[in-house]
Amino acid sequence: MDNKLLVVGTMAYDAIETPFDKVDKILGGCATYIALSACQLQVKIGVVSIVGEDFEEKHLNLLRNKHIDLSGVAILKGEKTFFWSGRYHNDLNTRTTLQTDLNVLTQFDPKVPEGWCDASIVLLGNLNPLNQAAVLNQMTTPPQLVIMDTMNYWMDHFRADLDELIPRVDVLCINDEEARQLTDQNSLVKAAKIIQGMGPKYVIIKKGEHGALLFHQQEVFCAPALPLEEIFDPTGAGDSFVGGFAAYLSQHGDISFEAMKSAIIFGSAMASFTVEKFGPQNLEILTHEKIQKRLRTFNQLTKFEIALT
Amino acid sequence: MDNKLLVVGTMAYDAIETPFDKVDKILGGCATYIALSACQLQVKIGVVSIVGEDFEEKHLNLLRNKHIDLSGVAILKGEKTFFWSGRYHNDLNTRTTLQTDLNVLTQFDPKVPEGWCDASIVLLGNLNPLNQAAVLNQMTTPPQLVIMDTMNYWMDHFRADLDELIPRVDVLCINDEEARQLTDQNSLVKAAKIIQGMGPKYVIIKKGEHGALLFHQQEVFCAPALPLEEIFDPTGAGDSFVGGFAAYLSQHGDISFEAMKSAIIFGSAMASFTVEKFGPQNLEILTHEKIQKRLRTFNQLTKFEIALT
Repeated sequence: MDNKLLVVGTMAYDAIETPFDKVDKILGGCATYIALSACQLQVKIGVVSIVGEDFEEKHLNLLRNKHIDLSGVAILKGEKTFFWSGRYHNDLNTRTTLQTDLNVLTQFDPKVPEGWCDASIVLLGNLNPLNQAAVLNQMTTPPQLVIMDTMNYWMDHFRADLDELIPRVDVLCINDEEARQLTDQNSLVKAAKIIQGMGPKYVIIKKGEHGALLFHQQEVFCAPALPLEEIFDPTGAGDSFVGGFAAYLSQHGDISFEAMKSAIIFGSAMASFTVEKFGPQNLEILTHEKIQKRLRTFNQLTKFEIALT
Repeated sequence: MDNKLLVVGTMAYDAIETPFDKVDKILGGCATYIALSACQLQVKIGVVSIVGEDFEEKHLNLLRNKHIDLSGVAILKGEKTFFWSGRYHNDLNTRTTLQTDLNVLTQFDPKVPEGWCDASIVLLGNLNPLNQAAVLNQMTTPPQLVIMDTMNYWMDHFRADLDELIPRVDVLCINDEEARQLTDQNSLVKAAKIIQGMGPKYVIIKKGEHGALLFHQQEVFCAPALPLEEIFDPTGAGDSFVGGFAAYLSQHGDISFEAMKSAIIFGSAMASFTVEKFGPQNLEILTHEKIQKRLRTFNQLTKFEIALT
């Protein structure tokens, strides 16, 4: 397995309000978070996305300097980058979207660059399922693993397109409420089984501060979230999680269930960094040492010995 | 450390309605669940409680046959046993109390039998803090570990008594919402720190289907709940959990943080059995083999290997 990871998703500017602070314009978009999380490992990352003329060179360079290939990012002259604005409530678990300016996104026609049509892992970031499918359709070599993230918006408005795409996916990654909505089941165990019946062999259910569950056949793995004293900004946590997950599998050239367990822990570590600062700021300044220290913390958080006879 | 575990708590009859079924009268009470959970290990268990004349001999024998010492259980002639009735809603996470007949509980004046005043572990089950304190006051040898379970009702109506008791407790065990209520903090990490400041060196925060967190100084341990397809009746899950926790420490004669991690997993396994059937029925028929199998499942649920450099 080569270690090419192809990512499709949004690049955006966000305005974010939390109980602690607010920012009017900060780098955002799921592809941005995924790439900034994935680039912490030794993986070749290619991004397929679209931005407007207002997308700043310094932000493109930020990604390029981390060896993220942006040849699949279209820059539309005279147009504006996707803009999202939201306010998090006091518990930081719920948010209100204040504004969504799709801008260039309405014209998004993803083009996979030639050198990326054989990527071994394809990560379909949270996006219109038609855009996600368009990327899969361009792969000349079938990817070894297709990972998809999605959310309730696409279930509400693009359900038929989503239903057509899900059978082509190996790992579906959604949050608990969305799993319940997608399957009309309250039990997450039942929901995961129904989703597996739709096609994906692996189902990851994200539970925010309660961690994540990974389902495969009859097996379940339960990953904790790091208990944090303060969450500054949850934006991008799920994207950082799935980006770290995909990168770990890609770096290790291993897509087994056992590897996925470790990959989920790595993704959880990435998410824990993201929420500690506004936007993707913390991912931008991560070091190998900080990551190793955090992974040791995750080890301590969950390891136990119990006497079995 | 001897392995005497002294438990104070209610013995009751419950009427329970869930979306699946209903029972008009089933054995209940926190001391019952705690004892039936703890007796799965090789531990000497003494119960301090009170029942009415209506409490059936077969239920006393059920406990006695499991070598649970009931010499601390007062039986009040002409009086009725504590009765609780509740209805669980569709998600099984919330319930409505339909009826609470305190009956004998209003006359409860706990008496610790002579042979139990030197128990090394005392578990104060969810109960009026004055009753809990009365048990501690009768210990002639200071226990090595005092564990207390409590709930929002006592915070609402007996806060001063609770505040007086908490500093005498080593391990406080409460659920997430109650931790927030007790400390007026949304972050569970902050809440746990505040509780530690009140006296208890260890804080266990129960999160239901999301597992439990154990805090000690700067350390945290995160235990999963077993993802179950169907929860039949959540009644007694928290009591079974803390009963299993205390029994594990008692059996191993070890009250270190490391031992508590294993003890929490054992408690979680007991809780997972309890919710699979109505009332304490599943605890009554548990076998060593079933428990070992469940513990192996917990191992598989959380074990991962991650490359650290």
